[in-house]
Amino acid sequence: MSEQTIAELGEFGLIDLVRGRLGTSDYVLVGPGDDAAHIATADGTYVTATDILVEGRHFRRDWSTAADIGRKAVAANLSDINAMGGVATALLVAFAAPGDLPVSWVADLVGGMVEECDKVGAKIVGGDMSSAEQVILSITALGDAERPVTRAGAKAGDQVAYAGTLGLASAGYGALSRGFRSPKAAVDEHRTPHPPYAAGPAAAAAGATSMIDISDGLLADLGHVARASKVAIDLDPAAFTILDAVQTVAGALGGVDPLRFVLTGGDDYALAATFAAGTTLPDGWTKIGTVRAGEGVTVAGAPYEGGTGHKHWT
Amino acid sequence: MSEQTIAELGEFGLIDLVRGRLGTSDYVLVGPGDDAAHIATADGTYVTATDILVEGRHFRRDWSTAADIGRKAVAANLSDINAMGGVATALLVAFAAPGDLPVSWVADLVGGMVEECDKVGAKIVGGDMSSAEQVILSITALGDAERPVTRAGAKAGDQVAYAGTLGLASAGYGALSRGFRSPKAAVDEHRTPHPPYAAGPAAAAAGATSMIDISDGLLADLGHVARASKVAIDLDPAAFTILDAVQTVAGALGGVDPLRFVLTGGDDYALAATFAAGTTLPDGWTKIGTVRAGEGVTVAGAPYEGGTGHKHWT
Repeated sequence: MSEQTIAELGEFGLIDLVRGRLGTSDYVLVGPGDDAAHIATADGTYVTATDILVEGRHFRRDWSTAADIGRKAVAANLSDINAMGGVATALLVAFAAPGDLPVSWVADLVGGMVEECDKVGAKIVGGDMSSAEQVILSITALGDAERPVTRAGAKAGDQVAYAGTLGLASAGYGALSRGFRSPKAAVDEHRTPHPPYAAGPAAAAAGATSMIDISDGLLADLGHVARASKVAIDLDPAAFTILDAVQTVAGALGGVDPLRFVLTGGDDYALAATFAAGTTLPDGWTKIGTVRAGEGVTVAGAPYEGGTGHKHWT
Repeated sequence: MSEQTIAELGEFGLIDLVRGRLGTSDYVLVGPGDDAAHIATADGTYVTATDILVEGRHFRRDWSTAADIGRKAVAANLSDINAMGGVATALLVAFAAPGDLPVSWVADLVGGMVEECDKVGAKIVGGDMSSAEQVILSITALGDAERPVTRAGAKAGDQVAYAGTLGLASAGYGALSRGFRSPKAAVDEHRTPHPPYAAGPAAAAAGATSMIDISDGLLADLGHVARASKVAIDLDPAAFTILDAVQTVAGALGGVDPLRFVLTGGDDYALAATFAAGTTLPDGWTKIGTVRAGEGVTVAGAPYEGGTGHKHWT
C-alpha cells in the first residue's frame, strides 16, 4: 500500500493539514494564513513573515545574477510586511549552498540583498548557513505596523484596488522560458521586482479594509482575500493598464491574451487592497473592481478561464 | 583561472565576509554574531534567531523519525532564545521537500515541532513551503528577553558554568555513525536534545555576564565567548560529570577519551555562561572553569588537542 505524497496532496492541502495542528496564544494577534503574523511582546507588537526560495524553483543561476537573486529574495519578504501596511526594520537570512559555489557569487548575493533592504531602511541582523545540494535562501522579515491590515476585512460595496505593476514579471518569465532575452522591461522585472513599498503603509493609513501582496497571481491572491473576508470580488477588465512589454510577450507567444499575465502572473509583488466606497485612494492605487456579497473572484461577472496561479508540487 | 569556492573559504570566513557588508540602525540593539538578535520596535523589543537544517547534514530520515526531527529543529532554535536569557513566544517555519515525501511524514514532523514548542509555550505563527531536492527546515524563533545576555560581557575573574547535558548527543552520533543503535540515552539525545529551557532566563535573572548555547561544541562555543568578550577561559576537566552512556560509547569506539565528547560535541543544546565571582549559581548550573585575562580557551591551562567543533564545507 503506498502512502499519499505531498505532491498528491498539493501545497494548499498540506498547508491546511499543518494549520490544523497549530495552537494559538495571547501573543499571537494575527497567526498563520495572512501575509505576515502580528505578534505581541511584553511591551509592544511587531509583524513578521518568512519566505523560502529554492534554486531551480524560484530562481536559476543561469537566468539571474546573484545580485538580482538577492534583491528578489529580499523584495519577496519585504513585500509581505508591505502587505500588512508595515515597514520592515530587520531581516534574518538562512542560506544553504553546495560547497563549490564561488565566494564572489555569495558576495554579490549579499550586495543585492543589502541594496533592496536599503529601500526601506531594513538591516540584516542575523542568519545561519549550511551546505546543501541546491542554493536555498530562507528569509524572515520583521517590522512595525501601526495598523496591521489583514486579508479578512473586505466588505460588500468596498472598492478593490492595486498598486505596483501586474503581469510584467510573469511576461518576463514567459519570455525567458522560451529562450528570449527581451523585452527588457519584462525580463528585468522577473529578475528584480519593484514592490511599491510606499503603497502598503499608505493604504493602511487610508483605512484599507483588507490587503494582500500578489505573489501567486492577482486572481489567486484576491481569492485568498475573498475567502478570508467571506465576500465575492468582481474585477473590471477595462480598468487595467496593460504594459507594452506584456503586449509584446503575449504576441510573441502566439496570441496569448495579455490580460492573462495581469490576472494570473505572480512575482511582481504588487499589492491589492480593498477600501470602503467613497474612500479617496492613496497615490499609486488604481481601482480595478468591487467587493460583493457571495464568494469567489470573477472578471466582468464571470469566472476567468485560464488558471489562477502557481502551485508547488502540482 | 578558477574562483575561490565557499568550501575553500570555509564557514567562518564566509560569515566574516557577509558581516562586513551589513549595516546597522537604531532598531538593531544586538546584531549579527550573537545567539539571537535583539531588535527594537516602535514601543518595545524582542529577540530573534534563525536556523537552517538540511537533510543529510543535520538529520537523516533513516536515523530519526519525523517527530524527532521536528523536535530537534525546534529545540535548536528555542535554544538560541534560551541563550539570550529569553523565552520564545512565536516561530516561523519554512519547509522545502521533494514531492514524493509522504504526507504522514510531514504530519509527524509538525507534531514533533508543536510538542517541543509546548515546552516553552511558543506557537508556530507562520511559514512558507516549496519543493526541493532535499528536506530543508528553516526556523525562526522570536521571543521576549527582559535582560538579553550576549556573548560579550565575560570579565576576568568570572566563574564559567554550564547547564544541561554535554557530550551525550555527539556520543549518540558516534554510535549511530558506526551502525550501533545504543546506548539508548546517547542515541535518543542525538535524535531529540533536551535543552535546559529554564536555565537561560534563570541565568539572566542571576546576572550572567555572558551566555551562549552549545551547538558547535563547548570549546568552540566558549571560543566565541572569549573572542567576543576579549578574555581567556580555562576549564577544569575534573569539574565535568561524564555520563555513563558517553563512557560506553568512548570505550566501544576503541578507547576515545570520553572528555572529547563533552568538550567538542555539539547538538545537546546545553548552555554555557559566565557569572561574576561570588554569584550563587542558579539551579541546574555547574561551575566548570574561570575567566582570565588573555585570549583562547584552555583545559587545565593547556590547549585541548582533538578538534574544537563542527564546520560546514570543510
